[in-house]
Amino acid sequence: MNDLPFSMMEYAERIHQTKKRMEAEGVEVLLLTDPANMHYLSGYDGWSFYVPQMLVVILEEEQPIWIGRKQDANGARLTTWLHPDHLIPYPDDYVQSTHKHPMDFVADSLTQIGQWDRRTGVEMDSYYFTAQAYERLRRRMPNARFQDCTLLVNRVRMVKSDQEIQYMRKAARIAERAMHAGLEAIAPGVRECDVAAQIVHAQMSGTPEFGGDYPAIVPLLPSDEKTSTPHLTWTDRPYKQGDTVLLELAGCYRRYHAPMARTAVIGSPSNLVRDLAEVVIEGLNITLDAVKPGITCEEVERVWRNSIERKGWLKESRLGYSVGLNYPPDWGEHTASLRAGDRTVLQPNMTFHMIPGMWFDSYGVELSETFLVTENGCEVLATFPREIFQCPFGSGMVHPLGESGA
Amino acid sequence: MNDLPFSMMEYAERIHQTKKRMEAEGVEVLLLTDPANMHYLSGYDGWSFYVPQMLVVILEEEQPIWIGRKQDANGARLTTWLHPDHLIPYPDDYVQSTHKHPMDFVADSLTQIGQWDRRTGVEMDSYYFTAQAYERLRRRMPNARFQDCTLLVNRVRMVKSDQEIQYMRKAARIAERAMHAGLEAIAPGVRECDVAAQIVHAQMSGTPEFGGDYPAIVPLLPSDEKTSTPHLTWTDRPYKQGDTVLLELAGCYRRYHAPMARTAVIGSPSNLVRDLAEVVIEGLNITLDAVKPGITCEEVERVWRNSIERKGWLKESRLGYSVGLNYPPDWGEHTASLRAGDRTVLQPNMTFHMIPGMWFDSYGVELSETFLVTENGCEVLATFPREIFQCPFGSGMVHPLGESGA
Repeated sequence: MNDLPFSMMEYAERIHQTKKRMEAEGVEVLLLTDPANMHYLSGYDGWSFYVPQMLVVILEEEQPIWIGRKQDANGARLTTWLHPDHLIPYPDDYVQSTHKHPMDFVADSLTQIGQWDRRTGVEMDSYYFTAQAYERLRRRMPNARFQDCTLLVNRVRMVKSDQEIQYMRKAARIAERAMHAGLEAIAPGVRECDVAAQIVHAQMSGTPEFGGDYPAIVPLLPSDEKTSTPHLTWTDRPYKQGDTVLLELAGCYRRYHAPMARTAVIGSPSNLVRDLAEVVIEGLNITLDAVKPGITCEEVERVWRNSIERKGWLKESRLGYSVGLNYPPDWGEHTASLRAGDRTVLQPNMTFHMIPGMWFDSYGVELSETFLVTENGCEVLATFPREIFQCPFGSGMVHPLGESGA
Repeated sequence: MNDLPFSMMEYAERIHQTKKRMEAEGVEVLLLTDPANMHYLSGYDGWSFYVPQMLVVILEEEQPIWIGRKQDANGARLTTWLHPDHLIPYPDDYVQSTHKHPMDFVADSLTQIGQWDRRTGVEMDSYYFTAQAYERLRRRMPNARFQDCTLLVNRVRMVKSDQEIQYMRKAARIAERAMHAGLEAIAPGVRECDVAAQIVHAQMSGTPEFGGDYPAIVPLLPSDEKTSTPHLTWTDRPYKQGDTVLLELAGCYRRYHAPMARTAVIGSPSNLVRDLAEVVIEGLNITLDAVKPGITCEEVERVWRNSIERKGWLKESRLGYSVGLNYPPDWGEHTASLRAGDRTVLQPNMTFHMIPGMWFDSYGVELSETFLVTENGCEVLATFPREIFQCPFGSGMVHPLGESGA
């Protein structure tokens, strides 16, 4: 038996929940191309999502069917709970060909097993379901009635099982270590890439008790004027006195993420950064205190909005999003967002990344936490001081690993 | 001026080559969603491809237009050569919304600037151009005539400039170090994740002279029976005596890749692995010797095929592919493949990853090289022994870093 991350009972429940939603949507066959959804239902794990692949859930069939590249079929055999006759490999000449497309093979396979004319759900807005993939399927399965089922499985994923939460707690332990490694490395004259190296080393090695998996996003490390925007990575520039550095990273354990962001300053923060940080930290603390089951996403965001408005600030971008299992390029689940207009009701065992980052034309500040909705409030998964860190370590405000900041 | 990786002259030439191909295809407006193509033409760099974004090339306009999320617009200002009035940010409430889609914004923007009814090229099979993205564009721009331009810019990218080759040579230096770090770490009782940590550390820190960028694929590290398939990553299992380990990784410098694969064995290789490795290494050497300008991709593959057929072996999957600039999830360029049927003619300054990996039901072997087509042959970018490595180091066949193996 393969070393599956979850019990067969848990997989059965996931399939059950998925089929319930398929029935509600009137869908008989569901074609999943989001690697996180494929993994969630089957256990399939591998960096093969750069070629088309799919998990097919058929309402009447107990087990889903995996369709993928032939050289990855052994990977499916070794990482899923599926019976080997539920793995359908396509020949290699379908890969990145000018005249053949893997979706032709998929359509032919579905036709062969009698699924050519069904109400068929597809993940229209999943990264790995291209416009071309859909065109090919439609052309080759003219009698199928296609229907958009983007996020159908993602919505099942929103409320975590106890085992999933255990994985996210482990991911948070790794996030603490990775953040600590990054902050400890930042100093004048040190290159940004060497700080990135310390962080990724900590992310993969994890703890002595359990190892780390690769996060769906590499460390985001903008510094200096690049702190005006959140998604820049690093260069080999050496840091200089006075630089601000944003660190957004995640710990990842068996594909489950606990993201966290902090802000560091080499030397003393400018008044601009100090003032903004104060607002962000206070807002983050107040908003986390307000989280509880029954509150909506937009109500959570309103607490934040009110908190910073009193100080004269406004954040246009969303405050956070549902988080957990994922593959590159994103650790977010794309379901609920903490923002005006999102009326998703928070339930126990949902998990969110609350990231009150604020970016202006020449500077920015980020501090974030991943939290679990509990029976009567929330649990912040990582234990890490909520402060602006002065680097290098030892020069003042830095706290040792594991000391709580809030 | 931003720290661009290439001269303005080089960007101008790239735009010129792109427009020539647009004219040949009868396309007036080209919507690029492949992050590598966006970067290639504009310099744009950031981990923001998890939300829709685009570079618009208009035949009559000197500069392309960047359209992306508002919080990434400063990233575009800081990493591209585009005039700020060519950056069009969309508000955050378009992100992962149930009712708004960034492509609605894109369509409205194109309409506003008079590009609503043109012959419009889209990258139908690019990861980040979903079926939904295309539907939205079509619905909102009913008078545009859409046309598939997948790989149009990728084909421009195939022949590298001297500067690009310099970057790939640097990437190869990093690949050597990363491979060395991985091999050095493998030993009985060491966890797979700790080997991954050493590799990624080496990938990011690079060399004392230049730092590393994140490769588009994390280290692929299947071991034991998982060597039957190439795309598995790692777990926290400790290696045991007798394990075979496949290591496929890349060095990356400023988004340019030099991938390399090697196979390690803890202790002595089995006869199966030893025999297969001999065939693979000989085939790799013979095939690299045959590379020269004017030969086609399928002729290169035939050299390999003949070489291993004489020993009674057959490899079904392609032997390699064009490589260079890229972003997750793939470092391949998706243009030419070394396989039967691909008649692409090799030209000086093309670069390929030749990966004669062979995977059977319980074991496999991989050894690969990235090569540059030169005026009269090829140059292998990395210098690393072409051998099966016996780990831990010092136990026999292992060579020091930098010693040539072929």
